[in-house]
Amino acid sequence: MTRPQLTHIQIDNYGPWTVEPEPRREMDLQTLQSRLFADIAQFVGSRDGYAFFTRFDNMVAVTNGLDSDAHALIQESIGNRYPVSISLSIATDSSPASALGTATNQLQDAGSAQDRGRTEILRGDPIPEAKRRDDDVQIAHFDVNDATGKYTDQLNEFDSFINIEQGYAELMQYMRRAHDSLSFFVGGDNIIVVCDAVDESGYFDAIEHVREAVEIDLKVGVGTDRTAQAAGMAAKHALETCREENVDVVFE
Amino acid sequence: MTRPQLTHIQIDNYGPWTVEPEPRREMDLQTLQSRLFADIAQFVGSRDGYAFFTRFDNMVAVTNGLDSDAHALIQESIGNRYPVSISLSIATDSSPASALGTATNQLQDAGSAQDRGRTEILRGDPIPEAKRRDDDVQIAHFDVNDATGKYTDQLNEFDSFINIEQGYAELMQYMRRAHDSLSFFVGGDNIIVVCDAVDESGYFDAIEHVREAVEIDLKVGVGTDRTAQAAGMAAKHALETCREENVDVVFE
Amino acid sequence: MTRPQLTHIQIDNYGPWTVEPEPRREMDLQTLQSRLFADIAQFVGSRDGYAFFTRFDNMVAVTNGLDSDAHALIQESIGNRYPVSISLSIATDSSPASALGTATNQLQDAGSAQDRGRTEILRGDPIPEAKRRDDDVQIAHFDVNDATGKYTDQLNEFDSFINIEQGYAELMQYMRRAHDSLSFFVGGDNIIVVCDAVDESGYFDAIEHVREAVEIDLKVGVGTDRTAQAAGMAAKHALETCREENVDVVFE
Amino acid sequence: MTRPQLTHIQIDNYGPWTVEPEPRREMDLQTLQSRLFADIAQFVGSRDGYAFFTRFDNMVAVTNGLDSDAHALIQESIGNRYPVSISLSIATDSSPASALGTATNQLQDAGSAQDRGRTEILRGDPIPEAKRRDDDVQIAHFDVNDATGKYTDQLNEFDSFINIEQGYAELMQYMRRAHDSLSFFVGGDNIIVVCDAVDESGYFDAIEHVREAVEIDLKVGVGTDRTAQAAGMAAKHALETCREENVDVVFE
Repeated sequence: MTRPQLTHIQIDNYGPWTVEPEPRREMDLQTLQSRLFADIAQFVGSRDGYAFFTRFDNMVAVTNGLDSDAHALIQESIGNRYPVSISLSIATDSSPASALGTATNQLQDAGSAQDRGRTEILRGDPIPEAKRRDDDVQIAHFDVNDATGKYTDQLNEFDSFINIEQGYAELMQYMRRAHDSLSFFVGGDNIIVVCDAVDESGYFDAIEHVREAVEIDLKVGVGTDRTAQAAGMAAKHALETCREENVDVVFE
Repeated sequence: MTRPQLTHIQIDNYGPWTVEPEPRREMDLQTLQSRLFADIAQFVGSRDGYAFFTRFDNMVAVTNGLDSDAHALIQESIGNRYPVSISLSIATDSSPASALGTATNQLQDAGSAQDRGRTEILRGDPIPEAKRRDDDVQIAHFDVNDATGKYTDQLNEFDSFINIEQGYAELMQYMRRAHDSLSFFVGGDNIIVVCDAVDESGYFDAIEHVREAVEIDLKVGVGTDRTAQAAGMAAKHALETCREENVDVVFE
Repeated sequence: MTRPQLTHIQIDNYGPWTVEPEPRREMDLQTLQSRLFADIAQFVGSRDGYAFFTRFDNMVAVTNGLDSDAHALIQESIGNRYPVSISLSIATDSSPASALGTATNQLQDAGSAQDRGRTEILRGDPIPEAKRRDDDVQIAHFDVNDATGKYTDQLNEFDSFINIEQGYAELMQYMRRAHDSLSFFVGGDNIIVVCDAVDESGYFDAIEHVREAVEIDLKVGVGTDRTAQAAGMAAKHALETCREENVDVVFE
Repeated sequence: MTRPQLTHIQIDNYGPWTVEPEPRREMDLQTLQSRLFADIAQFVGSRDGYAFFTRFDNMVAVTNGLDSDAHALIQESIGNRYPVSISLSIATDSSPASALGTATNQLQDAGSAQDRGRTEILRGDPIPEAKRRDDDVQIAHFDVNDATGKYTDQLNEFDSFINIEQGYAELMQYMRRAHDSLSFFVGGDNIIVVCDAVDESGYFDAIEHVREAVEIDLKVGVGTDRTAQAAGMAAKHALETCREENVDVVFE
């Protein structure tokens, strides 16, 4: 049983801000969003967590090892350096989806994402240091078999993207439904999944499902550790083993 | 008939670099990718183009108004400031998909995305200044009706994301098939589409298709102009009109 | 006779903002300032100007080739992406110091740097395109002879810095007094000077003055062109020639 | 007696890189340098240290509370995201100048700053956690009395800068000589000094010295604590007290 600590990160009242007093230049918004995400990725990542851009105005992070002070600090730092602020909500559960559900609920209880008066909320309790364990986080790192040879070097970039995107759409729904797990596209042909303790046959079934549904061939490396970074790095090494040994599923 | 100038931007030999000599920390890769995109968004955006992150290792930009020198300059600047370099390929066509197809072909002709010797390619011819027209670019800016009320403030963040993502997956495939048009998710509940000259009924059909397929309600503002920025800003204003007047399709 | 176009860039009401409602974390301020400068350096630099960080809350740029629209655009973009806004004032004169004097005056006329109501000022007239010439900008790029061997690899870093700093302090005052020229430390052992048309003996005298005053040995490459970037790149090549031929002053 | 832990941060072989194969665009270098510093400021700052840009190719940080792993992590992260790498050297002493001297020596022992083979050095021992104390760091935060009224709103920006710069040049040399302390200009009219345990009369003398030498009037807030951030924030509050009570030296 894993215990991922999930943090829901939400830019406060962002939608209205983007059009007030009138619509802002789209490329400024894109720059703002991707740099804000990059800052969170650095902060969380250098404390051995993983952050995902998701919708950019709402982000999700695996934050095992980050306490409330760390959350408060990135909130303060973003508030000092951006024209927008962020709210944060933390929860833990063996089911990643349930953990995020609790985190989102705590934020929703504090008010709407578009409530001007609801800013810089910080809710939820991180796992106490003494209760953390070496198998709290399972990370599965998927990629597409020979994506460069089959797509990038063959199709126009948008059709390559449609293929990757279809594979992602199928996997995210399957893993959510079958395993309460959360799948995030992280660029290229890579998908990182925050999993409950899924076993080998679970991953084979997922790969088989995506192959049948949209004809995209995936492989996956899986790691389990105390933090997302350690589990994710083990997963990356396992994925390298998949590549070298031409197999679909490797647990590190 | 529109004439979007599309640029395919590809990080050279990126996949191999991310695992050499061994896998790099994922959050460093996320930071690198999103900042590199942000720099391109600023460069292209301040010259009135639009850039989209797509897969991050491959990006797509609408670059009407940017000549070859401008493309060479951002290529040089990225090369000076990042541990990776980029290749660029430019093409124009009334069909956005065909334009990108040509751009991608030019890049593929120069070698594989994972060919170490194929770096900093710059191919293709921008539209000569004298041939540019005030209706070269049509941009459609979609968003989801009441996404905050129906999803963000109700569901857990991942399930909100799945809904938005499903709407996007349907729209991207429909617009590609029916109109040779390229749809990009840009965060929140926003999708920006680079269109051929699609008319009002075309947009109503697209919205209807997405509603029937996945029960996501979209609306869209449409603008046409000399540059992506001007067309896109008109589209944003049209989308504001949709909101105020409670209609699904508005042409500015 | 040169005609540098100088832009004075001032963060609006910055001092008070840094301590309201109470002092903000210094490293957040340092991050904000240096990234804001980096964005201006990219924007101005990719349009062939030079920007200098100076005091960070007040920056100076050589903007030959940037018109009022370009100035308005970077102002809007910073306003969209930072918690602070900037004011800009432009002026041209054969004397760099006089040009900047006029630019600063125009800003001061609009109100105090700490006037809350005085934000996003944009004043002054860029040189009309038709009146620009190929010798509008003279850039001198100085560095310290064998700075690595004499300082960096010998002294503790602070004492190295004191030496470089003393050389800079002497040069900046001498060039200001003798030639109405503006000297900017740009990192390492490099000083870039925006000059009126100073001749070879002028540069020899400057180097001699600094040597006598503080025993720091400088050399300098000088370039003149239509833009700061072109003049500055010529100066860099000239400085390489100084190094290769072991001479103190080279005009490209 | 204080025990500042100083880290000397040096970009490896940077000078040669900036001109190979030929000189790189100055604004790309400025962007690279200031963003690299910003990343270090965020990393160090969010762990309660202070980092200073100094010469940009060589930076100095007060790192009490950052262990060797933290130093290795920022080194790895910069190496993953920039075209240049950094070396780091750590030392502690009651005298800030001696601490930095030791840190620099350790780096020099490993090879020249321009030795191609000497990259990503990490030397020196952080203070063991058990030996850290609540008075390890003394930070003095100086600013110029009424800098906006006397300089920014009166003189041209360069002459304002010359005045601030002269004040800084005097203070940095005085504090180095009289107190083995390290003074860093941090923008605006602010100078932050990493001090040995300097007492009130020491600060009055410093202010008096600068006033007599260059007619710049300074005031200073002083804080002492376990980390640079805590000491520096106390110093900022003390400086606010100086302002409110119109006095020159306040210890928090």
